[in-house]
Amino acid sequence: MNKTQYALKLSLGLITLLNALPFISYANEDTKELRSPYDIVENAEASSWRTIDPENLLRMKLDTGTAWIELAPQFAPEHVSNIKALVREGFYDGLSVYRFVEGFVAQGGDESGKKTIKHAKRTIKSERFTQHSLAFTPLGFHDAFAEQTGFVDGFPAAQNKRGESWMVHCPGVFAMARNNPVDSGGTEFYVVLGHAPRYLDRNVTVFGRVIDGMEAFQSLQRKKSKQDQTFNPIRAVKVAADLDKTEQKQWQTMKTDSADFKEMIKSRANRPEPWFVEQPGVVDVCGVAVPVREAPKP
Amino acid sequence: MNKTQYALKLSLGLITLLNALPFISYANEDTKELRSPYDIVENAEASSWRTIDPENLLRMKLDTGTAWIELAPQFAPEHVSNIKALVREGFYDGLSVYRFVEGFVAQGGDESGKKTIKHAKRTIKSERFTQHSLAFTPLGFHDAFAEQTGFVDGFPAAQNKRGESWMVHCPGVFAMARNNPVDSGGTEFYVVLGHAPRYLDRNVTVFGRVIDGMEAFQSLQRKKSKQDQTFNPIRAVKVAADLDKTEQKQWQTMKTDSADFKEMIKSRANRPEPWFVEQPGVVDVCGVAVPVREAPKP
Repeated sequence: MNKTQYALKLSLGLITLLNALPFISYANEDTKELRSPYDIVENAEASSWRTIDPENLLRMKLDTGTAWIELAPQFAPEHVSNIKALVREGFYDGLSVYRFVEGFVAQGGDESGKKTIKHAKRTIKSERFTQHSLAFTPLGFHDAFAEQTGFVDGFPAAQNKRGESWMVHCPGVFAMARNNPVDSGGTEFYVVLGHAPRYLDRNVTVFGRVIDGMEAFQSLQRKKSKQDQTFNPIRAVKVAADLDKTEQKQWQTMKTDSADFKEMIKSRANRPEPWFVEQPGVVDVCGVAVPVREAPKP
Repeated sequence: MNKTQYALKLSLGLITLLNALPFISYANEDTKELRSPYDIVENAEASSWRTIDPENLLRMKLDTGTAWIELAPQFAPEHVSNIKALVREGFYDGLSVYRFVEGFVAQGGDESGKKTIKHAKRTIKSERFTQHSLAFTPLGFHDAFAEQTGFVDGFPAAQNKRGESWMVHCPGVFAMARNNPVDSGGTEFYVVLGHAPRYLDRNVTVFGRVIDGMEAFQSLQRKKSKQDQTFNPIRAVKVAADLDKTEQKQWQTMKTDSADFKEMIKSRANRPEPWFVEQPGVVDVCGVAVPVREAPKP
């Protein structure tokens, strides 16, 4: 190998490395024509919205408001199936959101661990990641925690070269708490409240996201001390498909493989609004909230 | 330059790049002896804590609780000086936190823009970054948004090779809202609530952080519609140094250049608790909350 060949070999190594760096994917594209995130949502094509299946949607009533949670069977079929079974036997009704850690999580379920379960399971095998092939829309920017991040059907996700995919801990995700044994979870859910605690990725099963009503979780009462008797009751949880017609809402989420959403990613990295004096040139997976709306009246 | 020299030159370039990549800095160090973040805080050396200067501390009373905000004159001396002047002439008392965007910001001040200001200024020149040399503790991991992130005196920060430093938009930071002209801010503050909106970095002046009472901001009433008359009053803001002795609290923050805090960074990236089945190997600047406590009784 002569000097030129040697330099070329090293340079190719360098290029491989550069591909893993940020500021690459969209940095050289023309971003002048981008619409703002607000404009994109307001003017998105009708075909850019997906109506959420009410069989994969929970409605949770708290004293602070109502939250709607879309479940992700693509990532965790057993968790989705089991929580629906728990919900349908009324397991959560009258229980509470008993753990609130400011800027981190709100956790609910059966603090005692003793409430009778009729048909569902109390613990289920972890589904921390899946090896199924999922339609993945890459974010297009380097991520510090995973080989690649992006979106699957509106859920923030990551994948690696081994073909594993998992949902990442962005604010609003719905996941299963567990004790030290990795398969010890099954009933105690948590909602991520604050800055993405990505260090939890792949340590637990994330299997949904709050599509509406984060304020119900954010506004829960805080315990002032361990002795404080503060109680945040879960009034009722229902699978949306089981609701009376009068109570149903037709939710839609922006398709993350749509051209509108792909423009949203770019627009988050290169903000076209005149307010901005400096451009980030990059965005992280939890920095692109996936839009949700109620379906427009026909 | 012979082949060896040439390879060496390229390799050094490669090493420089590698230093900017994640999974490098601490990945090869022995992490088995790390204490958990909880253990580090509980057992930190007395010398690892800095008592916060009450001249750089605001106490804000809201109906939802009391927040304490440490100001950062290192980054924005004019903003700190002016907000103290505004506070001392009672400007904020009776005003409101009039803008609440779930998972993003709570913004307060004078929505009308017409309240009389006696001595302070209504607008001040932006201090979006500083060129002063600041004692910077690097995080040690790649950041997608800035050349380098880390901490200055307990504040999450970034810097670039041009010698500019700025506070980054982690949850809890206290910053100055503005209209489109970059120097149009001066009175309307905001607190970051949710996942770090890093795309705002260097677009506005960040000049403090909430060290206690984030729940007071997170629990504010949400407007259900634009017509909703919901009002979140600011009852009173004081510079802590002006409080009666009975009202004062002696707050301490962990020194971010202490050995304890440096271990905290590593421990956030490589969690030693047995609960973890996978290690992130990396952490982001907003993922390392800087500990705060009330000074122990002597």
